[in-house]
Amino acid sequence: MLEWKVNVRETIPYVPGEQPQEGNIIKLNTNENPYPPAPKVASMAEQMDTDKFRLYPDPDVGMLTDKLAEYHGVNSNQVFVGVGSDDVLAMAFLTFFNSDKPILFPDITYSFYKVWAGLFKIPYSNPSLNRDFTINIQDYMVPNGGIVITNPNAPTSLYEPLSSIEDIVKANPCSVVIVDEAYIDFGGESALSLIEKYDNVLVVRTFSKSRSMAGMRIGYAVGNEELINALKSVKLSYNSYTMNMPSIILGTESVEDEQYFQSTLAKIVNTRENVKEQLEAIGFSVLESATNFLFATHERVSAESIFNDLRKKGIYVRYFKTPRIDNYIRITIGTDEEMAIFMEEITKLVK
Amino acid sequence: MLEWKVNVRETIPYVPGEQPQEGNIIKLNTNENPYPPAPKVASMAEQMDTDKFRLYPDPDVGMLTDKLAEYHGVNSNQVFVGVGSDDVLAMAFLTFFNSDKPILFPDITYSFYKVWAGLFKIPYSNPSLNRDFTINIQDYMVPNGGIVITNPNAPTSLYEPLSSIEDIVKANPCSVVIVDEAYIDFGGESALSLIEKYDNVLVVRTFSKSRSMAGMRIGYAVGNEELINALKSVKLSYNSYTMNMPSIILGTESVEDEQYFQSTLAKIVNTRENVKEQLEAIGFSVLESATNFLFATHERVSAESIFNDLRKKGIYVRYFKTPRIDNYIRITIGTDEEMAIFMEEITKLVK
Repeated sequence: MLEWKVNVRETIPYVPGEQPQEGNIIKLNTNENPYPPAPKVASMAEQMDTDKFRLYPDPDVGMLTDKLAEYHGVNSNQVFVGVGSDDVLAMAFLTFFNSDKPILFPDITYSFYKVWAGLFKIPYSNPSLNRDFTINIQDYMVPNGGIVITNPNAPTSLYEPLSSIEDIVKANPCSVVIVDEAYIDFGGESALSLIEKYDNVLVVRTFSKSRSMAGMRIGYAVGNEELINALKSVKLSYNSYTMNMPSIILGTESVEDEQYFQSTLAKIVNTRENVKEQLEAIGFSVLESATNFLFATHERVSAESIFNDLRKKGIYVRYFKTPRIDNYIRITIGTDEEMAIFMEEITKLVK
Repeated sequence: MLEWKVNVRETIPYVPGEQPQEGNIIKLNTNENPYPPAPKVASMAEQMDTDKFRLYPDPDVGMLTDKLAEYHGVNSNQVFVGVGSDDVLAMAFLTFFNSDKPILFPDITYSFYKVWAGLFKIPYSNPSLNRDFTINIQDYMVPNGGIVITNPNAPTSLYEPLSSIEDIVKANPCSVVIVDEAYIDFGGESALSLIEKYDNVLVVRTFSKSRSMAGMRIGYAVGNEELINALKSVKLSYNSYTMNMPSIILGTESVEDEQYFQSTLAKIVNTRENVKEQLEAIGFSVLESATNFLFATHERVSAESIFNDLRKKGIYVRYFKTPRIDNYIRITIGTDEEMAIFMEEITKLVK
């Protein structure tokens, strides 16, 4: 019985944050955006010519790729799109990390990196972040098969100066350095300025956070044309058509509306700074955030109990029961109204 | 310069059929459906709540999975969905084919199998189809690391009796046998009836052909719960959320409308049989098709020249310059109007 199991790939899947289906909750656990996508997205969605769904989409995703290239002031052949940045990152791991030397990423960072390394049998090593959760760049000056840095980092919310990223990129010409900028729109300077100077840096972005389109699954990478060509070659060896027509059409519309984009970013940053101050006033230490979430620890009450008690009240935040960060909660920034309720409840919990 | 290239995975990508962007062409080259998706798909597309796009989609794709399970009379835990059947097949290769023994698939079949084997470094061997392009089932009674059979086969259009598939499944309990049924709705009996009897058979389907939704990228697999769990584990190690909200919502609507589905299938089958007869009348040998395309060779005029000459007239069919089939063209069945123009032009070419 089940004799075929001997040939099955063993995996330890990534565990995403809960997606509770009840209506009446406050969801601050997966760093989604509290505001809807750009109004142009909604109006274009209504007008989509569904008769065209019978045809395959453009395998080059030309419309969206061109729009992103224009937005970032690069050439279209320097942009690669995928089904969320997870798809882009998974393909980048598969494409660039075929070395016997371990790839490097911090001990505390996006926990999917470990999962992809496991899936594709890529050796890896995890230098510890400093006690204050910053990177020690010397840790990335050792022989390696590739490097991944999330900047700003998750779940810490900290931004690492671009000069540190540049030092790492410069010191590793034989490795591709992936800079995962899922949160960069909320703070910090992008490594996009490095792609013309260095041929080994790949910047990865997502529409899931700043562009309010997690449900559409759109991510992309920007880099040297040769890096992008290598990614495309693997992508075309995996699935000719990964991005469906609605994502191509509605993703393009999102990029068109810069004013709406900037206004929601500003609202979130403003709410974030207010909430940070309020949390500090009730005994939390809160890391300096360059993202759409806060990473906080209380001087007296344990993070795990706060997480569980908030959950009972229908307020979902994220808690990682892993060494060094198991007394922190990660709080996604919602609307001002949501955060007022959150503050009311959390204040009661730490009294 | 480009020192990182030493660690790049080498691939030979699949080459999909052309997707010409000009308007005034007759596109019979990628086995798309000439009829639009079910009317319910269009009306639901207009009503989608785009505000919800800010949230991640359901990683379990419960709505669509449940609907497909109900449609096929199986449990929801026997269904796995992906971004087109290419995504499902790629994940199945990655999941099930981790053996040192070669996987087996015919020399003439969907040419992506070779590409996935290359991408994931899976050894493979390709038994030759018989001279009439049928399978010799003895070829699949040898030690192997897995088996893939497209039924009906592409590009030949031939259906292999279910008893042959069952013999292969039964003889290989240590291997997962993937039956790729991209075209089964156009003819033949599905291997779905085998999934309760054998734990090693995985049936793969797509919305791209019979359901007129190539542009939405929806595919799925049905099999024993243990097979599906293994696939899910790899999927959750690759990308938690592969299917976006429009695909989940509109895919579900498509399955709701059985009457429309059956009526377009009947139209295509009817057109197919008419065109086959007309082609035979002008000197073509046409294989018995159980698909939405015909595979034809002319007694006098070379397939390559027919392909090129049709292209000049704005009629795109598919031509594979590969041994044994390089004198055949593959013709997707379009509307009666499209096929009338096609017949008019091809008749001139073989005069």
